[in-house]
Amino acid sequence: MATADVQTNGHVKSSKYGDNMVNGLLHKEQKPSAPAGKNTDKDEIQLVLQSFRLLIADLCQQFNMGHPGSAIGMAALGVALWKYGMKYAPHTPTWFNRDRFLLSNGHACLFQYANHYLANYKSMTWEQLLSYHSERPDSLCPGHPEIEHEGVELTTGPLGQGIANAVGLAIATKNLAATYNRPGFDVVNNHTWCIVGDACLQEGLGCEAFSYAGHLKLTNLTVLYDNNQISCDGSVDLTNTEDVNMKMEACGWEVLDVMDGVNDVEAIVAALEKGRDTSRTKPLFVNIRSIIGVGSAVAGKAVSHGAPLGTQNIADMKKAYGWDTEKKFYLPDQVKDFYKDIPARGEKWVSQWHELVNKYKQAHPDLAAEFQARVEGRIPSDWAKSIPPSFPTEDTPTRKANNYVMKEAFGDIKAFMVGTADLTPSVNMTWKNYEIFNPPDLKPTSGSVGSYKGRYIHYGIREHVMGAIANGLAAYNPGTFIPITSSFFMFYLYAAPAVRMGALQRLPVIHVATHDSIGGGEDGPTHQPVELAALYRAMPNMHYIRPADSEEVAGAWEVSVNYKQGPSMISVSRQTLPQTGITSREGLKKGAYVAKEVQDADVTLIGVGAEFHFAVKLAEKLGIKARVVSFPSYALFREQSKEYQRSVLRRNEGIPSVVIEPYVSLGWERYADAGFNMRSFGHSLPGKYIYDYFGFNIDSMKRKTETFVSDWKNGSIGRGEYTELIDGSAH
Amino acid sequence: MATADVQTNGHVKSSKYGDNMVNGLLHKEQKPSAPAGKNTDKDEIQLVLQSFRLLIADLCQQFNMGHPGSAIGMAALGVALWKYGMKYAPHTPTWFNRDRFLLSNGHACLFQYANHYLANYKSMTWEQLLSYHSERPDSLCPGHPEIEHEGVELTTGPLGQGIANAVGLAIATKNLAATYNRPGFDVVNNHTWCIVGDACLQEGLGCEAFSYAGHLKLTNLTVLYDNNQISCDGSVDLTNTEDVNMKMEACGWEVLDVMDGVNDVEAIVAALEKGRDTSRTKPLFVNIRSIIGVGSAVAGKAVSHGAPLGTQNIADMKKAYGWDTEKKFYLPDQVKDFYKDIPARGEKWVSQWHELVNKYKQAHPDLAAEFQARVEGRIPSDWAKSIPPSFPTEDTPTRKANNYVMKEAFGDIKAFMVGTADLTPSVNMTWKNYEIFNPPDLKPTSGSVGSYKGRYIHYGIREHVMGAIANGLAAYNPGTFIPITSSFFMFYLYAAPAVRMGALQRLPVIHVATHDSIGGGEDGPTHQPVELAALYRAMPNMHYIRPADSEEVAGAWEVSVNYKQGPSMISVSRQTLPQTGITSREGLKKGAYVAKEVQDADVTLIGVGAEFHFAVKLAEKLGIKARVVSFPSYALFREQSKEYQRSVLRRNEGIPSVVIEPYVSLGWERYADAGFNMRSFGHSLPGKYIYDYFGFNIDSMKRKTETFVSDWKNGSIGRGEYTELIDGSAH
Repeated sequence: MATADVQTNGHVKSSKYGDNMVNGLLHKEQKPSAPAGKNTDKDEIQLVLQSFRLLIADLCQQFNMGHPGSAIGMAALGVALWKYGMKYAPHTPTWFNRDRFLLSNGHACLFQYANHYLANYKSMTWEQLLSYHSERPDSLCPGHPEIEHEGVELTTGPLGQGIANAVGLAIATKNLAATYNRPGFDVVNNHTWCIVGDACLQEGLGCEAFSYAGHLKLTNLTVLYDNNQISCDGSVDLTNTEDVNMKMEACGWEVLDVMDGVNDVEAIVAALEKGRDTSRTKPLFVNIRSIIGVGSAVAGKAVSHGAPLGTQNIADMKKAYGWDTEKKFYLPDQVKDFYKDIPARGEKWVSQWHELVNKYKQAHPDLAAEFQARVEGRIPSDWAKSIPPSFPTEDTPTRKANNYVMKEAFGDIKAFMVGTADLTPSVNMTWKNYEIFNPPDLKPTSGSVGSYKGRYIHYGIREHVMGAIANGLAAYNPGTFIPITSSFFMFYLYAAPAVRMGALQRLPVIHVATHDSIGGGEDGPTHQPVELAALYRAMPNMHYIRPADSEEVAGAWEVSVNYKQGPSMISVSRQTLPQTGITSREGLKKGAYVAKEVQDADVTLIGVGAEFHFAVKLAEKLGIKARVVSFPSYALFREQSKEYQRSVLRRNEGIPSVVIEPYVSLGWERYADAGFNMRSFGHSLPGKYIYDYFGFNIDSMKRKTETFVSDWKNGSIGRGEYTELIDGSAH
Repeated sequence: MATADVQTNGHVKSSKYGDNMVNGLLHKEQKPSAPAGKNTDKDEIQLVLQSFRLLIADLCQQFNMGHPGSAIGMAALGVALWKYGMKYAPHTPTWFNRDRFLLSNGHACLFQYANHYLANYKSMTWEQLLSYHSERPDSLCPGHPEIEHEGVELTTGPLGQGIANAVGLAIATKNLAATYNRPGFDVVNNHTWCIVGDACLQEGLGCEAFSYAGHLKLTNLTVLYDNNQISCDGSVDLTNTEDVNMKMEACGWEVLDVMDGVNDVEAIVAALEKGRDTSRTKPLFVNIRSIIGVGSAVAGKAVSHGAPLGTQNIADMKKAYGWDTEKKFYLPDQVKDFYKDIPARGEKWVSQWHELVNKYKQAHPDLAAEFQARVEGRIPSDWAKSIPPSFPTEDTPTRKANNYVMKEAFGDIKAFMVGTADLTPSVNMTWKNYEIFNPPDLKPTSGSVGSYKGRYIHYGIREHVMGAIANGLAAYNPGTFIPITSSFFMFYLYAAPAVRMGALQRLPVIHVATHDSIGGGEDGPTHQPVELAALYRAMPNMHYIRPADSEEVAGAWEVSVNYKQGPSMISVSRQTLPQTGITSREGLKKGAYVAKEVQDADVTLIGVGAEFHFAVKLAEKLGIKARVVSFPSYALFREQSKEYQRSVLRRNEGIPSVVIEPYVSLGWERYADAGFNMRSFGHSLPGKYIYDYFGFNIDSMKRKTETFVSDWKNGSIGRGEYTELIDGSAH
């Protein structure tokens, strides 16, 4: 094996280290086998690397699909991680204190699958590995790594998500360690490793993640940059010529270079050891030069990224390696043997950890009991008892009701990690003596000094990474954290790709979205959502909820904290809203309910969220008989029986429904026959003027509703036609 | 006036400069008045600054709303820009060669409005300035700057958008200059100035913009960083402690520091002069230390950001300045006089430019004619003649049809600026001898050397900035550019905030979104849209279009290039699709049309985009009589008359509609009574298996459709209930 070729970058201020590191590989008690030191068999490593590359090539060729290039280029990185660097247990893949690994360049998933096979993850059988891109719907080798499968911490693929998730995982460890570790009892000390490609460094999400992780001084995070300088369009320098190392240093990272990432396993292992070194004061970025598709005729070329190498090319690779060109999917026994001790090593770590936790229980019984509950993802089943049974009756913005409802629970229950994208004064989610999650040695110019025990996260003006970090927190271990994010509703469009990933993975994150309508007023159309709810209402597994007042906010929080099958979004108002006295937290949990029933109704008025009170007032004004339905959530309503749904809407009895919501109508056609909805973007006008400006005026709505019902009755409105009752529009 | 306090940062490699710059302020021919040099009256500048700050304070106090702090802190920057630095003509605000200015921190809009008033923009009357946050819906002073108003280049507010738009404006200038300028005839040489706050540096979008602008070496772009170190939650160092200057240098920017941004107008003017200096090789970033709410009791505090200062506080400010504490909205005549020559100066520049262009017409008549068409935003009215009348009849992905349709037009018409977020091989939008937009001295490792004349933009893996740059290109001057972006449809979720801003501003940008359904196959659910179309279908002013085959792709491009009231999105398939022979480009332009009519129909099958062919096949298989409607666009359909809509759907005749689209149903309830739609996220399976996996199988759909129609006829399906015919779900 070559001499370790770890180089410090010219900009790095940290002390240099070189060959002497090789003998300090991994913590001694974690050392699974002979380190990749000077006694290791060079030829054996080469055999492993060659086998790995050819296996990847064959697997992509099999069905003529897949992404071979970067997986092949990262072969040495795989050996360094799964054989030497990471502390994990393939036969106990959900071990609480395992190192977390994320492949942020998720298209290279085959890299991870093949390493899982080699490391002897039980579910990753040979047959399963061969199912990559086959017709098997139960393949454990999908086109991007998926959270449902052993060894995969989070689903990755959309670029930049993985590195942002990794920041969340590292925050989780820091917080748990600061909260529960005691001298001699490091019950949580796992490390987070994340591989990124060129793309994750270009995506804005990745930039946010790097900047924020550097600020947080997440020393338990190591990013391994697979620097192959190739993307789909060609060489990266077609489009990105920044000095990556310098940028990372500016963001507060320590930077190491590995000059030969293709073959120099030893250098990579030395870098990983540096990553795990807890005396660092910064997260570590390892810039590993690799060659996409190395060993093949398309090495270093974009064409090797997303297409199989071709049979002739693969045969030539085999020939150059001195392999049998006819043999496919060949793994020499020596390669399998190379990894055979991994499961036993892992189980030993698991039992050592259990022993430690048992001793911890004796030494710190109360703390250990709390820790155990966190490990099991339990919060008190009666957690909601701290929610007040009733609320002040004066007009209140629903964003303010957040605080009435949750301040006790946030204070008492450590699973809650509450955060905001720089909108603390707007979202009202702090609690008595809340502590900020920040490095303890950070002395901010304003605001209090925080610590890693802190559970209030100032994400900065970085909505996207906030969403993705929350996903990481939720995925750390089921139920250990209940992450809350918050921003203006409109800026959940910035966070949307992360919110979607949470929904796809069924991660229970709660998003609190304020300023959720034109009622936001003078900030104008850039800040007034009219179409965004359609996205979250359409998103599978997502509970999007618009509570009408404090009472419904209580229901929204209760149902959201209890929902474990995906994210929730609680959409609240900037402006004060009346407490109508006819809302119900129990009703909210069903998505829609009858707030006011009448005999022989002529019409059902559907009111929603911040504008529910319009429906109540309109019902009182109308010259015809109007029922009132509160309809805060499509998703919750759709979980109810058809009988319940019909009893709420009563459209099957021939009663037409009219909805009042100043969003575009898309979606309401399922529940209503007509609506007062927006047909354009909003307008900058103070809240007290804007509803009138757009025609949400009780007198005007009275006239239009009466005319509509009359037309409906006399049959002049076509079946299956949704009638738009608002004419006003601006932008 | 203080000695110029421009400092170079330690990291800057460029030569230092200091006092000697003061005498070289602005290009001599652009100098409007005595430079802010040593002869300028210090007291006068102080009077202007004080007046400006107090005016802002009074304006926010008037209606007890608004963002005073940063506008007050930037007073000196305002003087430097509108009095000295920028080349613009307030009485000819759309002058083609004007400098472009963007306020990326758009909440500080009052800063811009007040400067527009001082600079004598005609529409910004005193009465208008006083209307900030009033009840006037026709106020020219909305809560964020809006493109509709004089002097505002693009609507800003959502953070990071402005700086990204500015990159687009600077690209526009570079491209026009490289294409049309000739020795002695710099017909386009305007500069782009952009103010950013702390937030724009944190947002991922801003990071993408800085990285890409540095790569492009946009020497005609100067960013002025209002470095007040305050955001809503407190001091910026609570959440961001990166070395901003070092990061900017790593991204390829030249960095200058201005240490006293509060008072030192001269230093800022010197920095602006450096910005305009065309001998630079990089864009310029000026780090200007300022103090939010300076002069008030809340100076340097977050509370001054988004709330009025308070009457007592304002009175104290006035007292400290020696002003009459009772006077409100007071502008001394001397201050108005200070700006009075601005319009005449601007008109002189305008006429000089017209003179230059007239001489250019004589010297280069053909080029000048083409330039004139660009200035007027004209492309040949018969541009679409290059679209073939018919296409190959073999199965073709609609993404490939992009090339059939547009390669001639892209090649011939220079208004087209085609770009991609690293998906050139996937989107098929290059043309013969296309040239890449890149600095001419860039020699990429792979791919050809480009130039600023290039019209193909490799945006890198930066979807969000791609969308925002395209907005900047479109807003440079109406019709001068027709920007095209491209990516996977799913990654238009990353770009969505920019796409929305384009829709809000009615900017004609065309987004080409490929891999637009589960048919994308093995990439899996991260890359398979199921809910995203709901967002774009709900977005006002947006034409979201899913063409079914090459013929409809032709219609989609034609209608999109001709649509000037907002963006279009052409949503195309990864997979090959049959050419059914019953589609029509003219039909597409109406959003939906009857592709196959039958007498006494039992059902209407609605087919959409990549899955239209399922409707055609199903109609053939059914044991009942089925009409077939192709329905590529809600937005286009809604522009048609109610009569046309009824003639297409015929639901008013009692014929039920069944839609086939593997997206969630949201929205289809308006047009259909039942649907084969997704109820979950997708799944990783090769394209040839995935439709069956989710139940989009002709035999299965035949049975379900027949049962549904039978139930419909016998009345067992409730009115107003949308019937979901697919059971399958995955994630």
